Amino acid sequence: MTRTRTAIRGGLVITAADELHADVLIEDGRIAALAAHGSDAAAWETERSLDATGKYVIPGGVDAHTHMDFPFGGTFSSDDFATGTKAAAWGGTTTIVDFAVQTKGHPLREGLDHWHAKADAQCSVDYAFHMILSDVNEGTLKEMDLLVEEGITSFKLFMAYPGVFYSDDGQILRAMQRTAANGGLIMMHAENGIAIDVLVEQALAAGRTDPRHHGEVRRALLEAEATHRAIQLARVAGSPLYVVHVSAEEAVAELSQARRLGLPVFGETCPQYLFLSTDNLAEPDFEGAKYVCSTPLRPREHQAALWRGLRTNDLQVVSTDHCPFCFSGQKELGRGDFSKIPNGMPGVEHRMDLLHQAVLEGHIGRRRWIEIACATPARMFGLYPKKGTIAPGADADVVIYDPHAEQTLSADTHHMNVDYSAYEGKRITGQVETVLSRGETVIDRRTYTGRAGHGQYVPRGTCQLLG
Amino acid sequence: MTRTRTAIRGGLVITAADELHADVLIEDGRIAALAAHGSDAAAWETERSLDATGKYVIPGGVDAHTHMDFPFGGTFSSDDFATGTKAAAWGGTTTIVDFAVQTKGHPLREGLDHWHAKADAQCSVDYAFHMILSDVNEGTLKEMDLLVEEGITSFKLFMAYPGVFYSDDGQILRAMQRTAANGGLIMMHAENGIAIDVLVEQALAAGRTDPRHHGEVRRALLEAEATHRAIQLARVAGSPLYVVHVSAEEAVAELSQARRLGLPVFGETCPQYLFLSTDNLAEPDFEGAKYVCSTPLRPREHQAALWRGLRTNDLQVVSTDHCPFCFSGQKELGRGDFSKIPNGMPGVEHRMDLLHQAVLEGHIGRRRWIEIACATPARMFGLYPKKGTIAPGADADVVIYDPHAEQTLSADTHHMNVDYSAYEGKRITGQVETVLSRGETVIDRRTYTGRAGHGQYVPRGTCQLLG
Amino acid sequence: MTRTRTAIRGGLVITAADELHADVLIEDGRIAALAAHGSDAAAWETERSLDATGKYVIPGGVDAHTHMDFPFGGTFSSDDFATGTKAAAWGGTTTIVDFAVQTKGHPLREGLDHWHAKADAQCSVDYAFHMILSDVNEGTLKEMDLLVEEGITSFKLFMAYPGVFYSDDGQILRAMQRTAANGGLIMMHAENGIAIDVLVEQALAAGRTDPRHHGEVRRALLEAEATHRAIQLARVAGSPLYVVHVSAEEAVAELSQARRLGLPVFGETCPQYLFLSTDNLAEPDFEGAKYVCSTPLRPREHQAALWRGLRTNDLQVVSTDHCPFCFSGQKELGRGDFSKIPNGMPGVEHRMDLLHQAVLEGHIGRRRWIEIACATPARMFGLYPKKGTIAPGADADVVIYDPHAEQTLSADTHHMNVDYSAYEGKRITGQVETVLSRGETVIDRRTYTGRAGHGQYVPRGTCQLLG
Amino acid sequence: MTRTRTAIRGGLVITAADELHADVLIEDGRIAALAAHGSDAAAWETERSLDATGKYVIPGGVDAHTHMDFPFGGTFSSDDFATGTKAAAWGGTTTIVDFAVQTKGHPLREGLDHWHAKADAQCSVDYAFHMILSDVNEGTLKEMDLLVEEGITSFKLFMAYPGVFYSDDGQILRAMQRTAANGGLIMMHAENGIAIDVLVEQALAAGRTDPRHHGEVRRALLEAEATHRAIQLARVAGSPLYVVHVSAEEAVAELSQARRLGLPVFGETCPQYLFLSTDNLAEPDFEGAKYVCSTPLRPREHQAALWRGLRTNDLQVVSTDHCPFCFSGQKELGRGDFSKIPNGMPGVEHRMDLLHQAVLEGHIGRRRWIEIACATPARMFGLYPKKGTIAPGADADVVIYDPHAEQTLSADTHHMNVDYSAYEGKRITGQVETVLSRGETVIDRRTYTGRAGHGQYVPRGTCQLLG
Repeated sequence: MTRTRTAIRGGLVITAADELHADVLIEDGRIAALAAHGSDAAAWETERSLDATGKYVIPGGVDAHTHMDFPFGGTFSSDDFATGTKAAAWGGTTTIVDFAVQTKGHPLREGLDHWHAKADAQCSVDYAFHMILSDVNEGTLKEMDLLVEEGITSFKLFMAYPGVFYSDDGQILRAMQRTAANGGLIMMHAENGIAIDVLVEQALAAGRTDPRHHGEVRRALLEAEATHRAIQLARVAGSPLYVVHVSAEEAVAELSQARRLGLPVFGETCPQYLFLSTDNLAEPDFEGAKYVCSTPLRPREHQAALWRGLRTNDLQVVSTDHCPFCFSGQKELGRGDFSKIPNGMPGVEHRMDLLHQAVLEGHIGRRRWIEIACATPARMFGLYPKKGTIAPGADADVVIYDPHAEQTLSADTHHMNVDYSAYEGKRITGQVETVLSRGETVIDRRTYTGRAGHGQYVPRGTCQLLG
Repeated sequence: MTRTRTAIRGGLVITAADELHADVLIEDGRIAALAAHGSDAAAWETERSLDATGKYVIPGGVDAHTHMDFPFGGTFSSDDFATGTKAAAWGGTTTIVDFAVQTKGHPLREGLDHWHAKADAQCSVDYAFHMILSDVNEGTLKEMDLLVEEGITSFKLFMAYPGVFYSDDGQILRAMQRTAANGGLIMMHAENGIAIDVLVEQALAAGRTDPRHHGEVRRALLEAEATHRAIQLARVAGSPLYVVHVSAEEAVAELSQARRLGLPVFGETCPQYLFLSTDNLAEPDFEGAKYVCSTPLRPREHQAALWRGLRTNDLQVVSTDHCPFCFSGQKELGRGDFSKIPNGMPGVEHRMDLLHQAVLEGHIGRRRWIEIACATPARMFGLYPKKGTIAPGADADVVIYDPHAEQTLSADTHHMNVDYSAYEGKRITGQVETVLSRGETVIDRRTYTGRAGHGQYVPRGTCQLLG
Repeated sequence: MTRTRTAIRGGLVITAADELHADVLIEDGRIAALAAHGSDAAAWETERSLDATGKYVIPGGVDAHTHMDFPFGGTFSSDDFATGTKAAAWGGTTTIVDFAVQTKGHPLREGLDHWHAKADAQCSVDYAFHMILSDVNEGTLKEMDLLVEEGITSFKLFMAYPGVFYSDDGQILRAMQRTAANGGLIMMHAENGIAIDVLVEQALAAGRTDPRHHGEVRRALLEAEATHRAIQLARVAGSPLYVVHVSAEEAVAELSQARRLGLPVFGETCPQYLFLSTDNLAEPDFEGAKYVCSTPLRPREHQAALWRGLRTNDLQVVSTDHCPFCFSGQKELGRGDFSKIPNGMPGVEHRMDLLHQAVLEGHIGRRRWIEIACATPARMFGLYPKKGTIAPGADADVVIYDPHAEQTLSADTHHMNVDYSAYEGKRITGQVETVLSRGETVIDRRTYTGRAGHGQYVPRGTCQLLG
Repeated sequence: MTRTRTAIRGGLVITAADELHADVLIEDGRIAALAAHGSDAAAWETERSLDATGKYVIPGGVDAHTHMDFPFGGTFSSDDFATGTKAAAWGGTTTIVDFAVQTKGHPLREGLDHWHAKADAQCSVDYAFHMILSDVNEGTLKEMDLLVEEGITSFKLFMAYPGVFYSDDGQILRAMQRTAANGGLIMMHAENGIAIDVLVEQALAAGRTDPRHHGEVRRALLEAEATHRAIQLARVAGSPLYVVHVSAEEAVAELSQARRLGLPVFGETCPQYLFLSTDNLAEPDFEGAKYVCSTPLRPREHQAALWRGLRTNDLQVVSTDHCPFCFSGQKELGRGDFSKIPNGMPGVEHRMDLLHQAVLEGHIGRRRWIEIACATPARMFGLYPKKGTIAPGADADVVIYDPHAEQTLSADTHHMNVDYSAYEGKRITGQVETVLSRGETVIDRRTYTGRAGHGQYVPRGTCQLLG
């Protein structure tokens, strides 16, 4: 890398902690300095200067939950690492943490190698991996230690999908005990899948086959139950816990109660739960299938509890759970049987924008926007302060964000490789203008200037929110 | 002020958000820049350079609760603004917010003017004022609006001390309604003083006159009750609430429950509740009187709840409630009648150190130390980002803190004007080395180099933790 | 009394505990025996036999909260002991506990004597007294002991109505301490009247003068707050507590939380809160004034919480708070100023019927009906087993109740001395057929056969629900 | 049966509802009448008269949880129906509800027939059956309907003991749905056995093989977790739930929280959890094995929560879970491996006495004693008012209880077929004197006068505590 110095001048620098009228100096792909705008201290000589007057200067987003090229229900999510990370860049996200998948009966290493192969030389922005454990046993427990050492420090378990990803409570307890010892973090899909599958079978037998029944059988009480159970198992194991894609008010209450006790329990939600609802699942002509994901969308009333959880810090992270399937040919697999609809929705491109919209609508403040979308995911998964903030020494992953630009979300204009938008026609205010990844310009005033392969794999440290 | 540039080099900069190996540039009394240590960007030319290698570089402390020269029980607290702010500086606190007192029947303005006169030209560090309302009526309600406009944005009410500072629930409601409209913040002394005074009278009548009975009659349930009541009144008024000197586990629970509902309710505790207990109140030979303050010290078991509250953010601020009275001649007024012991303890000098000790003991993390002692009090009372952080544009209130130095707290060595230490003989690790106030050196490697009159009055904005 | 033996045959005897097809033998005004219907054991020779085939045989109701001839707002409630107890009899209530009132500055004894004079030789059914303390001081505290000894074992305090009945928290604490020692029970009107009066003043000043504003200013949160405070004061005093006329969901929650801790805290609600709502207060043409009482009617949603409280035993008693004022001439005092509307509603006649209706509507079971309306009020106020049950040895206060009769509530047909019915036109199923008071027939198949003066004063023991 | 009339005269009749000085007339095995003692109404001519002066006359106990001749861990509980029901009679228990066991893969009917065969013509007192489901499937779900119709109205499921009795959450949900439809009641062994078995394996692998480790691995949190899960599944199914042998404070809290919501959730505890603790499990020389049962004994501090639960009605029933194994030859199977100790303790003989002792010690009142030991178990399991009370029409299952007699519990004197007493040497006050079962004398002034075969099978109705 040539020694290039870039200044970003005149913007409002927003981090999780501060809002500053400061200029930012970038050197060798990292933040070198911040100085008060207009001060002598900011009189740097630089090769390049970006004017951010009237704009925000924010850390690049960290999306801690994506599924690129992910196998589910006999098909694969429609974004691969090339298309998915490009879309991420368009949306101001400069780091993704994707889920490598262990195939049942095979070692973790094999799954991880496979995921490295998928991502290698494809990515426009930096990436890291969590590991999905399909099979907790003596062998995989030992592998966990090795993975933590090499930078795969978080492991996802499922209390749903028996026969596929499901771990029983004994397996969960063992995996949690292991992370209590090796510093890893268990990420939990918390739904009582055993009970849900009974309700699925009963619904289908009764002819209730439409997409909206997906939402009805995956009862909020069964998300809350699994959340409670995971918390208790973590207490027994003495380990922390991160619950993914929290959607039900009752599940937030379980997290809230645990955190009040001072337990190291964390929760993530996603834009789809904050902005969409069972109303979407009920859209006619099988259109509801576009919104099938698990945990499912909930009745509109749950949204207030999620926003409150984000404000009270009972929820700490907003990720996308980006896992797109095309309506045509993929979602359609479930016509006449909602249980065959691939679970997942596109989202990696719109997280930063939708959360900025939430700022405008008064749900959260500006610094909290950056905290839940950049700083906390980075801290949670051992990427801080390299990622998630703008401070001397950090990677120069920086977004110049125009808070006044207006845009309309649509499949016609988005960059994700999927044939529909979950937010088709939604008008929002605020847009990414320019994106730097380690100092290189990936998006330049709404033009993609990046390249596959710029994005590097980032080994991670352990969770930085403990102790 | 002459144009002086100072660099602080080589230290670990700790703010509420970050820990950075960065150099800090100070220009004209403000932070001008931060740059990665050793980078070209840090190659500033400066008049002065302070070496912080192996040290912490932290924001000066903000103590949001002091009572200098405060009238209570027929005497005055023994530190005036001169001695008190000098002691604050020694302890790394560069801003205090003291309480101006309205005399019953007189306008707020008169009390405020009196406090300005007390502080003017006396202070070694910057200061601001809250206003104590002794008398909520049409006149004082109107004055509140004016005070908010001129930078007195917080008002203390008492649910205790009938006949002196006490406001009834109607007065409290009116004052809260007023702040809901004018942006001010009610600070509440939450104890049911009406009920407590019955227990005081009964205790004295029964011959229970020792200092420890002070702790027994001021029941934890009556602190919790008043806390609950204040919260409900604030809900009715639609106003935020800040509860001062929270000491009882049950009161923390009330705050926690309210915050879980998303209510804008805040709580402060003090080092004496975190480190001392009713064991101290029970010290023989009337020595317990040294620890008489209200709310009172609690049984040792309550400490865990306070630390947990600080970790879970159910408590947000640690202030000192510095209100010293000499044992000899002042505390002694209450021999034979605990109710005549002046209420209050010294503390302004030791807050930063005791909380650093808490970091070492594992109660809180380093960033949380700065958050509860610097950043949040500044935000809570409208001083941010001028105070409470190290960022371009902020006042250059900076402490170089030696985390390895050892010291023993003692009245022999402290700088507060009081004849005893509440922590006599306590050995702790960590010590303030050098203190800058707006760029000027007040403490230089453990020598006082400041001056009375350097400290300026700081008008404040409204609470920055709302919305 | 002549030795008369009466048998009630063929009915379903319902008590708080049992439902039995049993015959009941009455001798000398008391229950002498129960025997299985049709058994040899039931072959008593009696002077009189009442056929209850197809009917219920239930204990006479115990209404623990009435205000006959009660001074309020410059007028008196429109039922005196003669008319009120006759109406009670019509409604199947055979014992009332009325509130004797202390006049501020005068001894309790004087108020009690006055109430004895009002009731003496007037009553159709038995009666007892609680005592309202308007003035807690050394003298009245001592008098409490005497009153407990002579059978006035409960004392009502008000957290509302400053200047009239209001006691401050110190007075409340002292009275509670006294009952903790003498076995009495504090009954609390739990509303923060000091805060409410501020809201009243503000509403009137803003021209919000209609009856519905009575409901709006007496905020549910301020009932809940006072309930919480009363509970905490009782904990400090170590005394039990009975909260009268609970109407707000939030107040039920406070009771529920206290009872979960095992505290001796009890709650009463009234039919008006179970069947009426703020919809009634908003009736046009000042008709809302008919429903003005304190605590006020609440929005309809609160009813579910009250019913649930009755089912979970977080509420234990349903009384009427019977305190009628005629619309014409009395309620009208408050035209143009809701605060001048006398507080109170008629109800003593309809409690048993309305609660039977609740049985039919599935809110409570049959035994629970008798428990909350007869057995528990008797136990709560030291009248059991003389009153409140059908068991050998109990007073023969017995109602033959026709569960199938239909009736329409109306001022045209009711027997209370008030010119309106709060339930005008309401159709219900179930009706009192015959009423015995100590074996004498007061209502005989819907004809009044009683007489003023039959009803006797009943001194009471202490609360039987403790220990 | 010859027409015999018996009178019990002069005692204090105690039921769940009343305490009466009444004489009791028994005719044809049933209660015919109660009459005030000394009244004309009590002047019955009878063949036999029992003098109960100075004694209590109480309903015979109903023990809703026994395991006679029960297979566990390769052995059988040491009491069969002959010895066990005789011991029950000695202890004043006149009805037991035992658990018939389905063998996995076989129909419920087969198990039930087997249990009928075990009990037939053996019992000294009446008996009924619950059914243990080892295998929830289409066939057994259908059989449940039939069993409810014929009087087996409750079904026990296990969340522990995988491979033996364990049902997974899907099976539990299906069984609950079935009872929601057919009126049955699910009884739950609530422990997360899947997680516990991991801890068992780890404990044994680490050489922690003593009986006390049985208590340590069966974590209170894992009882609470399973309790919470069972409640949530019951909510999903819309069914009631009865949790057996609750022992942990945290599990009581789950029940309490559910009941506060008005959910039809019930809890049972047992004398061993109220009087014994992990101190017993830690007795040296393998003596701790005597106290091995599941859920396990808990640390002493949990007892207060259980007593409070019984007082607040968050727990409703005290049963024994009588399941004795001799120390010699049976408990000894687990020397060197606590997991091989047969789970269970003797208790059927001492429940009434231990709970009377609790009355004397102030934990519960006298009526509550009868309620939790007689009336509520009868109502819970559809036996009321035939069993559980003394009222005209009820079975004449009556105990004359001497509240002043003193006794010492010991294996030397007890009548259960087991070689140790869990309460060896414990001195208590109160003793059963005479026991009638349907009018026949089974224990006559401390002499057994009953006979095997007197006890009859009692088909049961559905739960009487709903709606």
